[in-house]
Amino acid sequence: MPEPVFQRLALIGIGLIGSSVARIARQRGDLAREVVVTARTQKTLDRVKELGFADRIEADPGRAVAGADCVMLCAPVGAFADLAAAIAPHLAPGSVLTDVGSTKQSVIRDVGPLVPEGVHFVPAHPVAGTEYSGPDSGFTTLFEGRWALLTPPPGTDPDAIERIAELWRRCGSMVQIMEPAHHDRVLAIVSHLPHLIAFTICGTADDLADESRQEVLRFAASGFRDFTRIAASDPVMWRDIFLNNREALLEMLARFMEDAQAMSRAVRWGDAGYIEDMVERGRKIRRSLIELKQA
Amino acid sequence: MPEPVFQRLALIGIGLIGSSVARIARQRGDLAREVVVTARTQKTLDRVKELGFADRIEADPGRAVAGADCVMLCAPVGAFADLAAAIAPHLAPGSVLTDVGSTKQSVIRDVGPLVPEGVHFVPAHPVAGTEYSGPDSGFTTLFEGRWALLTPPPGTDPDAIERIAELWRRCGSMVQIMEPAHHDRVLAIVSHLPHLIAFTICGTADDLADESRQEVLRFAASGFRDFTRIAASDPVMWRDIFLNNREALLEMLARFMEDAQAMSRAVRWGDAGYIEDMVERGRKIRRSLIELKQA
Repeated sequence: MPEPVFQRLALIGIGLIGSSVARIARQRGDLAREVVVTARTQKTLDRVKELGFADRIEADPGRAVAGADCVMLCAPVGAFADLAAAIAPHLAPGSVLTDVGSTKQSVIRDVGPLVPEGVHFVPAHPVAGTEYSGPDSGFTTLFEGRWALLTPPPGTDPDAIERIAELWRRCGSMVQIMEPAHHDRVLAIVSHLPHLIAFTICGTADDLADESRQEVLRFAASGFRDFTRIAASDPVMWRDIFLNNREALLEMLARFMEDAQAMSRAVRWGDAGYIEDMVERGRKIRRSLIELKQA
Repeated sequence: MPEPVFQRLALIGIGLIGSSVARIARQRGDLAREVVVTARTQKTLDRVKELGFADRIEADPGRAVAGADCVMLCAPVGAFADLAAAIAPHLAPGSVLTDVGSTKQSVIRDVGPLVPEGVHFVPAHPVAGTEYSGPDSGFTTLFEGRWALLTPPPGTDPDAIERIAELWRRCGSMVQIMEPAHHDRVLAIVSHLPHLIAFTICGTADDLADESRQEVLRFAASGFRDFTRIAASDPVMWRDIFLNNREALLEMLARFMEDAQAMSRAVRWGDAGYIEDMVERGRKIRRSLIELKQA
């Protein structure tokens, strides 16, 4: 077994991502010698104890990070500012502070200024997920073949970056360094906008008169079923993502709305060529995805 | 084995739905004693011959329906008017003409007036599908546990309706009789709008500058992957559905656009409560779907 990347890994928050990392650490043994877990509620802490993937459980974030050489924020991104303030005085000199948030400019804005001198800050985003949440939902193959995007601020210690990269490689991920603003734009179209749309269409269906709503549920064809799968994701996590990637999300949503209006117009005026072209583009993107083995 | 529902079943068009029906007929033996298949292109006819699920193959639709006691239109709905005109003179007295189109008012508008006296017209829609198309894509379990919606015009022979219902029950479907206009509204929100949105967002992504588009493909998280799966469906079939369910689709699209604008506003102004509420509604619909065992 190779030397563990870290001596002590502290996970702040233990949902789908955090509990998957903990399970991988337990299974492989070479992410960290010790995994410490903290969470917001006693109920979650009790469940983590039952699940048995933590070496130590701490109710207090400050105690959880004390002596850890890697601290990973795994809570919804809206909680990062308060969490960073709570743990900052307890972070060990030379330790690496990282996160798994889906928005990166907001994390750098909220956490960056609170990182003590001598602590290395390496924001990261493992692009992986399911519609499930909580400590029961994690599994050891979640990150296999998926990208982990690292957005370290200029001047970050290369060794700290490499250790976080190595941690994600050992989780099965491919690693890429990216500009935070570019990350947020790409994720807005790839993930945040699709989720916003899925939530919205479920709301649109939910607004229909009672009789129709019952039939929506009854006759949900494959199209709608896929949307509800996406829409089953965690409300607080997604609320925080939308609010913390506001500019990029609003830009992509505006583009999408223009395109949807154009489709609406094509349907109204019977522009068959336009509609066919749009459907063909969907197929083309699908084929490219399959070629890239992401589908 | 129960008596077959029909003596001779003629399938006009042999894509996902038609070739699934043919495969079920071949496997069970009690849908029809004989299955005749016709299709638009020689290439498809050749492939059907290789696949071996047809008792007889006819290039000419008129010859295909001659002597059949059930004729099922399985082509894209935009082709129905021409097909109905071509086969009408050849339909056997007392036979049942049915279809599998996803829009029902348009089928009644296009086909209804061409049905000869003495032929029973029972429009139907099996609510089942995948993103694949063509005679290779069919399979015998496609309709299991799915709904088949029948929209017979007032005064249709009850025995003809019952025989089409029985055919779909033997395919594994649950059957419901429905008003054509109500069908089109429910399907607009359940299936047609989700597909239009999926096609549109793939186009929105495809329009991004080259560098971002490459990264869209590379980092496609689960949200976007599900959209591309939906968007991989057949362009001609979907073009025809959109154009033939215009009014209901435009109404549902307008409702969705209002809701998306409201979400956009909530993101812009940081209305966390509104966003959380919308995500919760998605979860609620998902839970209802799971309870109804459709997910």
